[in-house]
Amino acid sequence: MVGIIMGSISDRKVMQEAAEALSELNIPYEMEIVSAHRTPERMLEYAATARERGLQVIIAGAGGAAHLPGMVAAVTSLPVIGVPVHSSNSIDGWDSILSILQMPSGVPVATVALNGARNAGILAAQILGASDSDIGNRLDEFKLNLKKKVAQMNEELKN
Amino acid sequence: MVGIIMGSISDRKVMQEAAEALSELNIPYEMEIVSAHRTPERMLEYAATARERGLQVIIAGAGGAAHLPGMVAAVTSLPVIGVPVHSSNSIDGWDSILSILQMPSGVPVATVALNGARNAGILAAQILGASDSDIGNRLDEFKLNLKKKVAQMNEELKN
Amino acid sequence: MVGIIMGSISDRKVMQEAAEALSELNIPYEMEIVSAHRTPERMLEYAATARERGLQVIIAGAGGAAHLPGMVAAVTSLPVIGVPVHSSNSIDGWDSILSILQMPSGVPVATVALNGARNAGILAAQILGASDSDIGNRLDEFKLNLKKKVAQMNEELKN
Amino acid sequence: MVGIIMGSISDRKVMQEAAEALSELNIPYEMEIVSAHRTPERMLEYAATARERGLQVIIAGAGGAAHLPGMVAAVTSLPVIGVPVHSSNSIDGWDSILSILQMPSGVPVATVALNGARNAGILAAQILGASDSDIGNRLDEFKLNLKKKVAQMNEELKN
Amino acid sequence: MVGIIMGSISDRKVMQEAAEALSELNIPYEMEIVSAHRTPERMLEYAATARERGLQVIIAGAGGAAHLPGMVAAVTSLPVIGVPVHSSNSIDGWDSILSILQMPSGVPVATVALNGARNAGILAAQILGASDSDIGNRLDEFKLNLKKKVAQMNEELKN
Amino acid sequence: MVGIIMGSISDRKVMQEAAEALSELNIPYEMEIVSAHRTPERMLEYAATARERGLQVIIAGAGGAAHLPGMVAAVTSLPVIGVPVHSSNSIDGWDSILSILQMPSGVPVATVALNGARNAGILAAQILGASDSDIGNRLDEFKLNLKKKVAQMNEELKN
Amino acid sequence: MVGIIMGSISDRKVMQEAAEALSELNIPYEMEIVSAHRTPERMLEYAATARERGLQVIIAGAGGAAHLPGMVAAVTSLPVIGVPVHSSNSIDGWDSILSILQMPSGVPVATVALNGARNAGILAAQILGASDSDIGNRLDEFKLNLKKKVAQMNEELKN
Amino acid sequence: MVGIIMGSISDRKVMQEAAEALSELNIPYEMEIVSAHRTPERMLEYAATARERGLQVIIAGAGGAAHLPGMVAAVTSLPVIGVPVHSSNSIDGWDSILSILQMPSGVPVATVALNGARNAGILAAQILGASDSDIGNRLDEFKLNLKKKVAQMNEELKN
Repeated sequence: MVGIIMGSISDRKVMQEAAEALSELNIPYEMEIVSAHRTPERMLEYAATARERGLQVIIAGAGGAAHLPGMVAAVTSLPVIGVPVHSSNSIDGWDSILSILQMPSGVPVATVALNGARNAGILAAQILGASDSDIGNRLDEFKLNLKKKVAQMNEELKN
Repeated sequence: MVGIIMGSISDRKVMQEAAEALSELNIPYEMEIVSAHRTPERMLEYAATARERGLQVIIAGAGGAAHLPGMVAAVTSLPVIGVPVHSSNSIDGWDSILSILQMPSGVPVATVALNGARNAGILAAQILGASDSDIGNRLDEFKLNLKKKVAQMNEELKN
Repeated sequence: MVGIIMGSISDRKVMQEAAEALSELNIPYEMEIVSAHRTPERMLEYAATARERGLQVIIAGAGGAAHLPGMVAAVTSLPVIGVPVHSSNSIDGWDSILSILQMPSGVPVATVALNGARNAGILAAQILGASDSDIGNRLDEFKLNLKKKVAQMNEELKN
Repeated sequence: MVGIIMGSISDRKVMQEAAEALSELNIPYEMEIVSAHRTPERMLEYAATARERGLQVIIAGAGGAAHLPGMVAAVTSLPVIGVPVHSSNSIDGWDSILSILQMPSGVPVATVALNGARNAGILAAQILGASDSDIGNRLDEFKLNLKKKVAQMNEELKN
Repeated sequence: MVGIIMGSISDRKVMQEAAEALSELNIPYEMEIVSAHRTPERMLEYAATARERGLQVIIAGAGGAAHLPGMVAAVTSLPVIGVPVHSSNSIDGWDSILSILQMPSGVPVATVALNGARNAGILAAQILGASDSDIGNRLDEFKLNLKKKVAQMNEELKN
Repeated sequence: MVGIIMGSISDRKVMQEAAEALSELNIPYEMEIVSAHRTPERMLEYAATARERGLQVIIAGAGGAAHLPGMVAAVTSLPVIGVPVHSSNSIDGWDSILSILQMPSGVPVATVALNGARNAGILAAQILGASDSDIGNRLDEFKLNLKKKVAQMNEELKN
Repeated sequence: MVGIIMGSISDRKVMQEAAEALSELNIPYEMEIVSAHRTPERMLEYAATARERGLQVIIAGAGGAAHLPGMVAAVTSLPVIGVPVHSSNSIDGWDSILSILQMPSGVPVATVALNGARNAGILAAQILGASDSDIGNRLDEFKLNLKKKVAQMNEELKN
Repeated sequence: MVGIIMGSISDRKVMQEAAEALSELNIPYEMEIVSAHRTPERMLEYAATARERGLQVIIAGAGGAAHLPGMVAAVTSLPVIGVPVHSSNSIDGWDSILSILQMPSGVPVATVALNGARNAGILAAQILGASDSDIGNRLDEFKLNLKKKVAQMNEELKN
C-alpha cells in the first residue's frame, strides 16, 4: 500500500498522476491532504502510524518552502518520495526542489523531478518491486511499452 | 524573553551572534538545540508551549533543507525569525534561504540575511520594542552607534 | 497601528493583501505610497516620525532593486517587514528578494516570501501579539481556521 | 544486496559514505566503478543483469553532466538512487543535481542531496525495509540514535 | 551526411530547424527519434554504427535531464552537437543546458544555445566545411546574407 | 571632480582601484565613506549637494543589499556609477549586482562588473571625456596601452 | 548627440524607449541597427568613427550572448551604455545581463536594468548634463515630475 | 591545423590543455593571445584570414563577458569551439558560459564545459576526423584508453 499526501488541494492536479501510475501498475494506494504548516500534529501522527497501518512507501508532494516530505521522513523509517510541486507561490520551482532535496544526513527523501508525480508513482512501484518479483515483472513490461512508444513516434515523424 | 533554537551544534558559531546582540541590548534569552528532522516531537512541543513559557519571539536557525523555522511557525502564533545558515551541506546558501523564506500563506517566517543571526537578535529586540518604549530607546541609541562607526571609518580612510 | 507603504501604485494589487489580513485580525493600519527612488526625503521623514505618530510596525513592499524596506529600516528602530514584489521590471523576483533580504549587520528587515503580503500582515499581527495576549488569542483562532480549511480540502478531495 | 556504482575513482571519497551507512545497518553491498561515458556498454550490462544477479537497489553517484544514475534507471526496473557529486568539474553542484533529478516521465531516479551518499545508503535500507520488518526495526533504532545525538549536542551547548 | 536525433516527438518542432538549415546549405541528413532513457540499446547501436553508415556529424536534441547527446558522444568518435531543448519538463532550460554542456574530460559535446537547433545545423555544415571548400564557400555566402538582412532591417527601422 | 563613496571601510580594497584609475588618467577625485543604512541623512545630503560642490560624476560601491548607488541616484541628477562589491555578506555577488542594476524607470545607475571599481574609474573619465577632448585623448592613449599589453602577453606566451 | 544602436529590429520595441526619454529631455539622437555578429566590420567602423562624427554617448542594446555594447566599448573611448534586452532567445535575461555587465578591466560598459532602455536614455542625458548645466536643470525638473507622479498615485490609492 | 586563441595570458593554464590534447592526437596547432576587447581589429583580421592561412578549426577561450569565441565566429565560417574560462573576474563561471553559449541564430559557437579546454582539443580532432579516417582511427583508440582507465580505477578501488 502506498500513501499519497499533498499539502493543499491545489497540488491535486499534479499529484493525481502518481495515483494514475500506481493504478496502471496495479498497486493499491490511499490519498489525503496533510499540511505540514496547517496541520503539523496530524502530519506527525500520519507519519508515526504509517508503517503499522500497512503503508510501505509514502509519496509526499508540496510547493514553495516544501516541508511536508522532509518532516514525514523525520518521523517514519519508511521510504518517502518527495515531489517538488511548481505551485503558484513557487519561484520557478527552485524553492520546492531545494527544500525537499537538500535533507540533512540521517533523514533522506527520495526526490523526483519538478512536478514529477508520475515518476513518483513508478518509483514507489519499483521500491515494492525490489522485494516482489511479480511487481518487478510488471515494471519490466512497463519498460517495454516505453520502447514501443518511441517506435510509434518514429512512425509519426516519418509521416 | 527570546528563544534561540538551532538545528545542530554546528550552527552555534553563527547563531551565538543573535545571543550577543540580545545581550548588548539587555534582552533576556534562552538557547537550545531543537532539530526538526531528528527531534520532531520535541520541536512541536517547544513551539506549542513557547507562549505559555513566557517566550515572546523565537529565533530559529538552520541550513540546507531548513525546516525548523517554518515548522515552529506552524505551531506557535508567536513571531518566528528565521536565520538561513550557510552550513556545510548547503548549496551556496540558496537552499537555506528558499526553504525558510518561501512559506505558504498563513504561516509567515520573518527571514533575515544568510548567516544574519546578529540581525535576527536586533530584529527580536525591535519586535519587543514595538510595544516597549524602553527597548525602543535602547534601539535608537544603538542606531546612533552605527552612525559613529561610520565617522570612525572615515577617520581610518583618511589615514 | 501598522503602516503599509509601497513604492508604486502598481504594487497595490499585491500589497492590499496585507491590509486584508490586518482587517481580518482587527488590527488598524494606514496605507500610503512612499517611493525610495522618487520621494527619498518623504521616505526618510515617514520613517523618522513613524514611532512618534504611533506606528508600531511598518510593512514595506517593493520590486526590482527594492530599496524601500531597507531604507526605512535604516531610519526607524521599529520592526520593518519587507515584501518582495514580483513587479514587471523584476527578474523572476530574484532582484526583489535579494535587495530586501540581504541587509547588512545592524539594520534587519523581516523578509517574507515573494508577493507574500498576506503573510506580512499576519506577521505584523504576531509582532503586536508578542506583547498583547488579546491579539495572541485571535492569532491562535486564526491558526485553527487553517486546520479547518485542510479538513474541507479533504472533503473536496474525496468527492 | 545493494549495488553502489560511481563514475570515477574521484567520487570514492563521497560514495564510500553510502557503504558505511549500509554497514552500520547491516545491509550487504558491492561497490564498482562504472562510467556512463567511458564504459557505456559495461554500464548497460551492469544495469541489465542487476536484478538477476540479486541486486535489489542501485546507488549511483556522478558529477557534472551526471548521466550514470539516469542511464542505469533506463535499463533496469530496480529502484535507482542518484547521488549528485560536487566534483571538481561541477558548477557549484547545479549540473550534477539537475542532470540526475530532472528525469523524464517513465524513468525515475530517487535523488538525494548534493554529496548525500550517506543518505543514499540509508534510503536503500529504507527501501529494503519497506518489505522487511527486521530492517525496519533497525531503522527505527537508527532514528532513536539521531535523537540521542541532539541530546548530546545540548549538553555540549550548555558547557 | 548528418544524423539528426531527438529524444521525443515533442522535440520535433525545435529540431526540424536543424534540418531546415542543412537543407538551405544543401547538406544531406537523416532524422530519427532515439531515446536515451526509453531505447538505450538502440541509442548505443545508433552511435556505434554511425561512422560506418556514413554519418560525419550527429546532432542530438533533448530536454530536462538531457542524456542523449552525451551518451551518443560516449560511443562514437564522430563530433556530436548537442541542442538543449526547452521542453515542458525543463526548469527554464537550465537542466537541459547543464546536462549537455558539462561533459567530463574525454567526451566532448559541442553545445549550442537553448533551442538553438538552427545553429546546430549551421555548425554541422561548418564542421563539414572545415575540410570541404565547396561547403566553405556556401557558408561564406550564407554569412553575406546575414549582412543583407541587417541592411533590410535598417530600411524597416527608418520607415 | 569625481566623488567616490562606499558603504564601509571593508569596501576600500576594491574601491581604491577606482581612485587609481582616475589618478592614472589625471582626473581629480575625493573619497569618503557614506553608508545608506547607517548614515541615511548624510547620504541624502551628500547627494543633494554634489552638483553644487563641483562633483560631475559619483562612483558608489556597496555589497549585499546594496542601496547606496541607487539612493544617491534618487537624489542627484548627476550620473552615478554603481560598483557591486563582493563583500563577505554577499551571496556570490548576486545580491550586490541585482540591487544595484535593477533600478526602476526614471532613476538609472550605470552599473559595472562585480568588483569592477577600476572600470568605474575609467567610465567616470569617459563620462567627463564625452565633453572634454583633452580627456578623450588621454583615454584613446589608454586604449593603445591595452593593445600593447596584449603584444607583451604574446611575447610571454611564446617563451 | 547620442547614438542608439541595437542588434536586431526585434530589439526596437524596447530600444525606442531610450529615444523617447531623450526626446523628452530635448537631446538629439540617431538610431541604427548594427549587429555585432552579422555586421562585425560595420560595428567596428561605427565605433571607431563615433567621436569624430560628433557622438558623445552610445546606447547599445542586445539580447542573449549580447556582444554589441562590449565590442563597441572596445573600440571607442566614448561612454557606452549597455541595455540587456530580454529577447526571445534569452534565458530569462540572465545571458543578456551577464554578457554586457561582466566586462574585463579596461573596457567598461555602463549597464542598466533588463529592458531598461528608458533609463539608458536618462543616463545618457545625465552624462551630457555632467558638463552642461542646462541639461542638468532639465534633469532636476525631470526628477520633480517623478515626485509629482507619486503624489498622483497617492490620490489614486485613496480613491 | 587548429588555431588556439585566448583573451589573456591568465587563460593559458586552462587553454594549454587544448594544446596537450591535440598533441596527444598528433594534430598540429598554433597558439596566440587575441583579445576581443583590447585588440578588436587584430581579432577580426585573425578570423577573416583564418581559412586562407590553413586553419580548419578555431578554439577560443575567454572568461567573464566572454566575447572572443562569438566575435571570431561572426567573421569566419570555420567551426569555432568556445571554452568558457572560470577566470578571476567571473561569477562562478555563469557569465563565461552564457556569453559564449547563447549565440544568436546564424552564428553558432560549439561550446564545451567550463574550463573544458581538453575537451575542446578532442572536439577539434573529432571535427577533423569527420572527414579524415586516419584521425578517426586515432580517436577510436583514444576511446579505448578511456575504458582502460576505468579498469585501472576498479583495481585501485579494490585495494
